[in-house]
Formats: sequence, structure tokens, C-alpha cells
Amino acid sequence: MSTINEIQLAHERIRPFIHRTPVLTNKSLNRDIGARLYFKCENFQKTGSFKIRGATNAVMLLNDDDIAKGIVTASSGNHGAALAMAVKVRGGSVKVVMPKNTPQIKVENVKRNGGEIIWCEPKQKSRDQVLKKLLNKTGSVLIHPYNDANIIAGQGTTAKELLEDIPDLEIIISPVSGGGLLGGTLIFSKKINSKICVYGAEPNEANDAYRSLQHGEIQTNKTTNTICDGLRAQIGNLTFPIIKEKVDGIITVSENDIIQAMRMVWERMKIIVEPSCSITLAAIIKRKKFMQGKKIGLIMSGGNVDLSQLPFH
Amino acid sequence: MSTINEIQLAHERIRPFIHRTPVLTNKSLNRDIGARLYFKCENFQKTGSFKIRGATNAVMLLNDDDIAKGIVTASSGNHGAALAMAVKVRGGSVKVVMPKNTPQIKVENVKRNGGEIIWCEPKQKSRDQVLKKLLNKTGSVLIHPYNDANIIAGQGTTAKELLEDIPDLEIIISPVSGGGLLGGTLIFSKKINSKICVYGAEPNEANDAYRSLQHGEIQTNKTTNTICDGLRAQIGNLTFPIIKEKVDGIITVSENDIIQAMRMVWERMKIIVEPSCSITLAAIIKRKKFMQGKKIGLIMSGGNVDLSQLPFH
Repeated sequence: MSTINEIQLAHERIRPFIHRTPVLTNKSLNRDIGARLYFKCENFQKTGSFKIRGATNAVMLLNDDDIAKGIVTASSGNHGAALAMAVKVRGGSVKVVMPKNTPQIKVENVKRNGGEIIWCEPKQKSRDQVLKKLLNKTGSVLIHPYNDANIIAGQGTTAKELLEDIPDLEIIISPVSGGGLLGGTLIFSKKINSKICVYGAEPNEANDAYRSLQHGEIQTNKTTNTICDGLRAQIGNLTFPIIKEKVDGIITVSENDIIQAMRMVWERMKIIVEPSCSITLAAIIKRKKFMQGKKIGLIMSGGNVDLSQLPFH
Repeated sequence: MSTINEIQLAHERIRPFIHRTPVLTNKSLNRDIGARLYFKCENFQKTGSFKIRGATNAVMLLNDDDIAKGIVTASSGNHGAALAMAVKVRGGSVKVVMPKNTPQIKVENVKRNGGEIIWCEPKQKSRDQVLKKLLNKTGSVLIHPYNDANIIAGQGTTAKELLEDIPDLEIIISPVSGGGLLGGTLIFSKKINSKICVYGAEPNEANDAYRSLQHGEIQTNKTTNTICDGLRAQIGNLTFPIIKEKVDGIITVSENDIIQAMRMVWERMKIIVEPSCSITLAAIIKRKKFMQGKKIGLIMSGGNVDLSQLPFH
């Protein structure tokens, strides 16, 4: 299991290549919800999401021979773009297995950063098969989007910065998909302050983490029919044990609540966040009674939204 | 004419009631445009636009008798909301004459801040008539959205903060409608550094400032058929002389260019800005050759956009 020390080392390693993103607050949201909300804005991060943290950490730890073999990954988009940017620094090349229904902005983002896209069907099974075939064919090095200790350590630096800025948070909410961000958040936050409650926010429509916790072992997604294109992946066998041991709960949220929360953030805060990230606010609103009066950090994971396909009416 | 001293006094007066908004930069936009752009983000300002600056300055200078009479204004929305917030601090009430085609988000913004809305037709003439009638009927005090020395001084504090943060700007671009923001920007910037070039950005479809400058006297808008709902007003007889004396030029921009620039800001910077404000980037892109290599401040005037009525396809 990754450790707080690895997160601290990761932070030193990646610091020159990432932004220190701001933590924003909003009086009118605080008043409406009755809590003090601190938004860690990774939507302003390089490539538009927190994924550059883990990707950079993993890539910096490769040796030159590995880089020369080429890097491959599977991604819903944000990890692919981040990995492409991180590998470019080392002078290597990246192939990204991506589902055909990926939003155009994430496709462009991978291409703009120099990644090559290999399409797969929008199912975990197809993703795994295409990736495996690619690995066999190319002999390239896999950097998994979340099931990798170096990725988890990199993602944990988000919570590290958040807690450096706002040390007395009582609750932190992170989205959960494959579990890299939530895993890293848990490792760092619980070690720094065992009293902090950390929750994952997950769509009802892709609730494998929630059900996995209930069953005590990894369950697969029954649907991935959610607007949160970044939260359709399957929880990993490296990330699940961390979550199982440390998390205070997974809050599942409806599609409508995710969209309403996204609208609130856009309208009140004037910042663009993905549905996969507004889900953290939706989770707070769903558990409003419990959250009231608390000092809560929300990890705003990314802002890559296709403006031609918005859910607002 | 307002002076730099009045802007400095205004800043002291309004400081406790406004945000010090950030100045943002974006590497990928800088690279694409070939200039160093500094975005003064008044979209993050209280009530979602710079208008709170002028409104607060004007309201703080009223005596209690004036406040007791009630305050009235005419506004495309942002000044109305700002004035309502500013007057509430003094315990007074506000009536806002607003065109019927005002975006819903601006209507809500006025109401949320306690303003009462009086509807008019979306023409300058109707706006003036309804306002005059209201003034006669109520005996209230008018705080004009731009044709008022205290308003101009308040709006000038935006440029003051921008130049405090980035003192060596070579160019500043401000949107121009009634001329309060551009007027205040000109007074402050040109006095601090006579070498700074200051341009107004104006829609082709509401180009009264541009034509007024050409003719040397105030011209009326022939159309106001622009997506920039904040830039449909008529240049004022207090603001025009300032602009005529000091401005380096008015850059007029097409509707399509305004929308494209808005999309660029949303996608790359992950912040929500109004068309009335993305017009400053559109102006830079239109004059790209001249702007290249320069250090340019853009006044991002506001972020109140109706998410149900977006121009992206």
C-alpha cells in the first residue's frame, strides 16, 4: 500500500510540472448549504484535471529504456491527456486506449498533447482486451490510470495541498471511479489527521465502489450509463483495499442531482467543472443535514466538458 | 471629468464591500495568440460583474435622506443587481428598469439581491421613458448605470487593481457600452502611465462608440442586435468626452468572433465569462498582428450567462 511518505516524495518530484491550484470559496453556496465549503480547483490544473499529478509521478520514475519502449494506457480521456503531457517532457510517445463515446474535448486534449488514440468500445471488457492486445503487440510499458502505486501517490498530492491550505477541514469529499484519487486522498488525509472524515462520491449509475464496500469484495459495474464520463471505470485491486480500510463511506448520487450541482457551481462560482467533479457538491447536498455546520473540502477533479453537449435546458 | 484622485478615494471607500479579483494567465492561449495576456477576472466579483464597484461608490456617497427616498436605475442587469446589493448595506430599496429580453440569470440576480424590477421594451427610448416616469412618480434618487462621475470613479478601480498587480502592461482592453468602465480605465491608466494604450471593444451590432468617435460627437445605436446583452446601451454625455480625449481606438467585433472567443475562454481557462466580456479577447484576435509580443490586460467584466441559452453548437 502507498504511504504518506510516497505522497510527500511524489509532491517534490512533480512540483515543477504542475500548477498549485487555488482553493476557492463561495459565500452564497455556503449560506444555501449551511456549511463552509472549500473547493480545491483541479479543473484549473494542467490538461484540465488532477490526472497530471499521478501521470507525472509515474513517468518521472521510469528509466530511459522504458521511455524508449513507448508508453500505453487506457483512459476515459483525462489520464490520457495528462500522460501524453508527462511523457512529452521525457521525449517519449504515448498510445491511449479510449472508449468511442469519449467527449470531443477530451479527444482533442489527448491529441493536442501529442498522444495517439486507439479506440475501444465503451465497456470495461473491450477496454481491457484492446489494451492487452496493444501491450502484446508493441512491448510498450503500461501506465495504468489508477491501479498503480505511483499513480495513487501522485493523486494524493491534491489532498496534501488542500490540507496545507485549509488544515482544519472536518470532511473531504472526492469523486471515486477507479479509486486512484480517493485512495491517495485517504492515505494522506487519515495519516495527517485521523479525525478527518473522507467520503467518496459516486454516480448511482456506476456504483461499483459502493456495492464493493457493501459486499466486502470487488463488484463490477452493472451500468455505466452516467453523464460522469470520468467515473465509469472499475475500482482496482490496488485501490479497493485502501478504500475498504479507510473510507468513511461512499455517497451515491442521481444523474439529476449531479447536473443540478454542476449548474450551481457554474452559475455561482463562474468556473467550469465536469459532472464527474460536481458530483462532490451533489453528495454534500444529498447529505445536507449531516454536512451542515461542517468545514468541508471538495476535490474539484477536472473541467473538461464538451460545450456542444451540455445537459442544461 | 473624474480624476485619478477620485478613483483612489473610491477604492478606499469600496474596498470592504468588494472582492480583490484575481488576474489569471493561460499558457496555451498565450502561445496561440503570441502575446502575454492578463485576465482581470471581474466575473468572480460580487454579483458576478465589475458593476458593484461603481454602484457601491455611488451609494456610499449618498446621504441618509437620499437613501430614504429610494433608489432607481435602468440596467441591462448587472448594474441593477450590484446596486441592489450596495443599497441593501445602507438599508434602502431599489427599483430597476430592465429590458424584457434580459437573460433570466440577470433577472434572478437582481431579485436575489432584493431589487424590484420594472420592465421596459428593449430599446433605449423605452428605457429612458419608463425611467423618467418612475422618477417623477416616486421622487426617488437616480443612480445612472454609467453617466455619473461616482460610477465612473468606481469602475476605474478595476484598472487600478490590474495595474497594481501587473504594472508593466503595454495595452489594456475594456469592453465599451455606456462607457463607465472604459472611462474609468482610461482616467486611471493614462495618468499612471501615459504610454499605455487603451482600447475599447464593441460589437459591430451596437457600435455607437465607434461611430461617435468617427463623427466626433455622440451617435445613437442603429441596432442592438448583439449577443452581448451588457453592451447594448448608449454612450453617455459624461463618458464620451473622456473616451474621445483619451482612447487609442475602439475595436469592433463580429458576433461570431465574440462567441468563438467566449468558447476559447471557457474551454481553455475553465472560467465562465459573458459574451460582453469575451469580446475583449475577440478584439485581440482581430488585431492579432498588432497585439503580438505585447503584454496585454483584458478586463473580464462579468460572468452572468444564462446556461439555458448558450450559443455553442
